[in-house]
Amino acid sequence: MTVRVKIHSTGVCHTDASTLWGRDPEGPGGLFPTILGHEGAGIVESIGEGVTNVKPGDHVIPLWLPHCGGCRACGKTNLCEKVWKMMGKGVLLDGTSRFTCKGKTLFHYMGTSTFSQYTVLPDISVVKVNSAARLDRVCLLGCGIPTGYGSALNTAKVTEGSSVAVWGLGTIGLAAVMGARKANAKRIIGVDINPEKFQVGKKFGCTEFVNPKEHEDRPIQEVLADMTDGGLDFTFECIGNVQTMRAALESLQKGWGVSTIVGVAGRGLELAFPPFQLLIGRKWTGSFFGDYKGEDLPALVEEYLKGELMVDEFVTQELQMDDINKAFDSLRGGKG
Amino acid sequence: MTVRVKIHSTGVCHTDASTLWGRDPEGPGGLFPTILGHEGAGIVESIGEGVTNVKPGDHVIPLWLPHCGGCRACGKTNLCEKVWKMMGKGVLLDGTSRFTCKGKTLFHYMGTSTFSQYTVLPDISVVKVNSAARLDRVCLLGCGIPTGYGSALNTAKVTEGSSVAVWGLGTIGLAAVMGARKANAKRIIGVDINPEKFQVGKKFGCTEFVNPKEHEDRPIQEVLADMTDGGLDFTFECIGNVQTMRAALESLQKGWGVSTIVGVAGRGLELAFPPFQLLIGRKWTGSFFGDYKGEDLPALVEEYLKGELMVDEFVTQELQMDDINKAFDSLRGGKG
Repeated sequence: MTVRVKIHSTGVCHTDASTLWGRDPEGPGGLFPTILGHEGAGIVESIGEGVTNVKPGDHVIPLWLPHCGGCRACGKTNLCEKVWKMMGKGVLLDGTSRFTCKGKTLFHYMGTSTFSQYTVLPDISVVKVNSAARLDRVCLLGCGIPTGYGSALNTAKVTEGSSVAVWGLGTIGLAAVMGARKANAKRIIGVDINPEKFQVGKKFGCTEFVNPKEHEDRPIQEVLADMTDGGLDFTFECIGNVQTMRAALESLQKGWGVSTIVGVAGRGLELAFPPFQLLIGRKWTGSFFGDYKGEDLPALVEEYLKGELMVDEFVTQELQMDDINKAFDSLRGGKG
Repeated sequence: MTVRVKIHSTGVCHTDASTLWGRDPEGPGGLFPTILGHEGAGIVESIGEGVTNVKPGDHVIPLWLPHCGGCRACGKTNLCEKVWKMMGKGVLLDGTSRFTCKGKTLFHYMGTSTFSQYTVLPDISVVKVNSAARLDRVCLLGCGIPTGYGSALNTAKVTEGSSVAVWGLGTIGLAAVMGARKANAKRIIGVDINPEKFQVGKKFGCTEFVNPKEHEDRPIQEVLADMTDGGLDFTFECIGNVQTMRAALESLQKGWGVSTIVGVAGRGLELAFPPFQLLIGRKWTGSFFGDYKGEDLPALVEEYLKGELMVDEFVTQELQMDDINKAFDSLRGGKG
């Protein structure tokens, strides 16, 4: 049961870039030739037999992390067992590819392949959203925004009045900041080595900013502990750097601080830390897609339409498909 | 406001041994000459001015992790800020030592120094318990039993019907097993390289046993994942070995598994792992003293008196104080 979607717009995510540049971590990707892209939005063009959740003309967001709804994991998490088994295999859930180029079969990417005029997905891999929302905006709800926003609201469950620090003010980090603000955190400290990110961070909810390059004489965890009377209640690593993951853990209050890994580290990289840092009651976790399921996206689109969720503000550049490599250049330069 | 306690009985804990053998981790200990011991029980001999929580004759358990009750941390955790600042300093909370030997000042150890006929402690460092309970039994509630039992019940909050694995079936591991049984876990797998521990483990609640030495052809996390349809709901590391800490994390179900570090690693040791293991929604934490406060101990003593909490079964050897080095020999040999 598949659906063909005419892709209207797509974001370019660091995971696409990691795969393109050969640095993809465990998990999705790595098979070529492929059609990259997993953060898109489009309109259903046609549906296969038995498909009931969407019909032609529906506005949809493709889901790189769909769920079957029937397995044990689906009852507890967004990491469906059935989907998990097929991840990174470059084919749809039924084991087939639906792309060819000059007679040669292409691999799918993250089950979505949104860098394409048309893509084919299983029915569970699309979710219908309000057609009043601009597709060139809500495509960002296909990955980056929910990943950060949900890490604060669903994974860490930031509490009212708490102190928060977010490493890396890209899309995911800014969305985590926005989630922390939604949860009424009192202090939200943006941590980035690019000072230009602070003005951006403020728009999304940062109350303070720390540039580790201005504190090279001592560990950033000490700087933050001094700023926060011993440490933070919540930290988020949205870079994918094993050093900052450790710093984010060690910047927590002992006893109750929660650190969430959202960034994806390079393949094969390990993180080393003294376990005493956990023994003293800190909590460390992580999530995919902010612990959201596809069925949560229509509500996020409604939040956006009501002006309660910032989406437009994440858009820094708009390019035509032919210029997609310029988008990768922007990502590489930290400008996008 | 201090209390003088006549120590009746004391356990010997690995933390005492680590300090004695020069391997103490961050945290308590390491200053000599000192009087070791922190898992004791005794009778109040006299009280200083203003002490109201106990009176001479009361049966008490000394607390190596007391709490002031007034600081921010005391409202949320058992890691009191006031106490934390004085930990490992070898003196009481008021900065004094109350021990001398041949005119020379001795350090206190973990604020309790129970390897002594008499010890002096702050009033907040003793808790009165039912005098009907044998002191040579409830001394074990001063450290080992609550540390393991509480790690299951308070820290990880093991759920009914869940699957659990516990690395290291010493006092703390067996107490974690007992906590998992109390929480009505369905499967409790003991993991130890000493096969003799299985019979002991069964008494405390183990339903299965895995000896990593019998599976040297593949990682224990794979063995356990195969046994448990993908991984465990809860794991506990009660050894203090950085390799088994990693194995305990990687043996979890993705999405919801919770691993708790209870064992204390050697000083300076670091644990390396691929952060993807957390990104996929596992949770990693740890605790001191099973997240219990001293004020919880009277209820544990009552559980013991009602036959609901095993304590006697932890006693493998009873020695007089003059033979204390034999107790350390037993610990070293894995027999005690």
